[in-house]
Amino acid sequence: MSRVYNFSAGPAMIPEEVLRQAQEEMLDWHGLGMSIMEVGHRGPEFQAVLEQVEADMREVLSIPSNYQVLFVAGGASHQFSMVPLNLLSEHNKHADYLETGVWSRKAVIEAKRYGTINVAGQVITENGIHRLPLQPELNLNPKAAYLHYTPNETVDGIEFHWVPQTGKVPLVADMTSSILSHPIDVNQYQLIYAGAQKNIGQAGITVVIVREDLVKEALSFTPILYSYKVHVEHKSVYNTPPTYAIYLAGLVLNWVQRQGGLKVIGERNQRKSKKLYSCIDQLSDFYMNKVAPDCRALMNVVFSLKREDLTEEFLNQAAQAGLANLRGHRAAGGCRASIYNAMPEAGVDCLVEFMKDFAKKNG
Amino acid sequence: MSRVYNFSAGPAMIPEEVLRQAQEEMLDWHGLGMSIMEVGHRGPEFQAVLEQVEADMREVLSIPSNYQVLFVAGGASHQFSMVPLNLLSEHNKHADYLETGVWSRKAVIEAKRYGTINVAGQVITENGIHRLPLQPELNLNPKAAYLHYTPNETVDGIEFHWVPQTGKVPLVADMTSSILSHPIDVNQYQLIYAGAQKNIGQAGITVVIVREDLVKEALSFTPILYSYKVHVEHKSVYNTPPTYAIYLAGLVLNWVQRQGGLKVIGERNQRKSKKLYSCIDQLSDFYMNKVAPDCRALMNVVFSLKREDLTEEFLNQAAQAGLANLRGHRAAGGCRASIYNAMPEAGVDCLVEFMKDFAKKNG
Repeated sequence: MSRVYNFSAGPAMIPEEVLRQAQEEMLDWHGLGMSIMEVGHRGPEFQAVLEQVEADMREVLSIPSNYQVLFVAGGASHQFSMVPLNLLSEHNKHADYLETGVWSRKAVIEAKRYGTINVAGQVITENGIHRLPLQPELNLNPKAAYLHYTPNETVDGIEFHWVPQTGKVPLVADMTSSILSHPIDVNQYQLIYAGAQKNIGQAGITVVIVREDLVKEALSFTPILYSYKVHVEHKSVYNTPPTYAIYLAGLVLNWVQRQGGLKVIGERNQRKSKKLYSCIDQLSDFYMNKVAPDCRALMNVVFSLKREDLTEEFLNQAAQAGLANLRGHRAAGGCRASIYNAMPEAGVDCLVEFMKDFAKKNG
Repeated sequence: MSRVYNFSAGPAMIPEEVLRQAQEEMLDWHGLGMSIMEVGHRGPEFQAVLEQVEADMREVLSIPSNYQVLFVAGGASHQFSMVPLNLLSEHNKHADYLETGVWSRKAVIEAKRYGTINVAGQVITENGIHRLPLQPELNLNPKAAYLHYTPNETVDGIEFHWVPQTGKVPLVADMTSSILSHPIDVNQYQLIYAGAQKNIGQAGITVVIVREDLVKEALSFTPILYSYKVHVEHKSVYNTPPTYAIYLAGLVLNWVQRQGGLKVIGERNQRKSKKLYSCIDQLSDFYMNKVAPDCRALMNVVFSLKREDLTEEFLNQAAQAGLANLRGHRAAGGCRASIYNAMPEAGVDCLVEFMKDFAKKNG
């Protein structure tokens, strides 16, 4: 079968060029007579890959030199533990969290096991429309060890298009579903983490970008591989890291560079999401999105059909038309079009046409 | 370049058939129009892969039904923390460890952070020859929460060819470098774990085989994803697992099945290691192995040159002859031929010929 448009929320679509390169290099990487998957993590070949991936990540995200870039095994859920274990201390076990959806809620639950957590902001629903809290609505603790938030909530399709101001309190962001989707100013954060399976590549690795002054001794009972300090001191190879996932992240970053970097990518993503939200709004008798326009997610367009009983038919017909994985998260129901970087504009155009057509036939 | 014989200790050689299949399926898995890397971990496609990989693991290793098979992100070093965090309790913080090389030593160091560790056995050196302790030489604590050992030490090339008897004390084995190398009786163990990057596939995932009665509440401060109970309850998908690594493990297991299973694989590995050790012993004026014959590793043949100054030349000439990554571990020096399942007998034959030839020219 030819490649389909895959709207999966993650693990998600990977640029075809990247897959083709990985395919080509599978048995013989750079004339070495073996796959990069088969080489030792401390050998010169993989060390060169690791250094280059870090350099490319720094270049693409304009990461200042006083930030460390780490590649940590596992997904963002591991970070839900690592953040409090590393940033809380015996002297300060207070942290602020914005709880704005499924993922930030999970982060709160795990953090509460290690400290006193203040939920400093939540989603506000007015007339059935959901919006994020505004800066003056945040109940910030100026003595918190950090504030954690999730700029984009994939399940709920709701995104901060501004950065919370926390004064001297370090800002920690779970960017799993928003990293590389548009340019950011890393200086506004003290710690950023992102599971790879949306815009970076293969599930099983998380990128952590942390300002050096935040790297210190973790709480005494922290498992050794949950310590940022250990990862920093060993340059992400205290133990064998997920080497192939790191290699693949490098191919994706090179693809981002070839596209023209995050400015071009961000503009393309704006066009993609605008097309979809416009379609939903124009066909408001048929489709619904209940997120306030200025809080709508760039990467995850959540919508439902007014006639809920048509949802299965919609999903089936879409799949037959080569538009796969549009089902909403099991916690949310309805539909969701995840349009990460690898989703071409043509895929969004196809979906818009399909949605118009489906509404016409069933409206 | 054509494929070389890769003696890397891990990440290590992967069967060429497996890489070819992965290559072929990279852009379109089973006619789905996408890579298995790009599908959601809760969708029917990946769930089917996960179930099949577990079934194949159970079939290949004859795992009884009262054992759980888990796929956990990260490597064996994560298990160095997970084992004590899950098997120690407030009532019993005592555990026995056999400390027989680099890896079991690391396991001891981490375990000491959580409990009172009794080193119940160590390597014994007599007349310059290293051997493992015998059963009567073990200093076992009958009240230990468990005994942990490392059947094969990759750095040191030393392997238990028998299973320690611990009475009612649960036996925990780090089989990272020995799993799938020969048949085992899973019933003799209560918990087995193995990082994938030797005989299972891609770095970044660890297989945990645990008898159900050992799965209980972890110590109170255990991060959620370090709890075996959480992994059991969520069937390895509490969060997004390393999906591609799991898929690849499945391809490797199918390859093992096509070879005729672990009996055939084990016999082949015996032939491979015997050829190498015989070569070393026959050329004892030139090569040395200091492990007692009945403790020599099946998978990692460690040796050195009597004329240490020839080591670099040996490694260089070997590499030129397509025999790659024969350098010993940085902690051990010398040479090491890791001859995991994917290393064909022809690769070992080539190495033996090369070693004979090198000894002749330089002896």
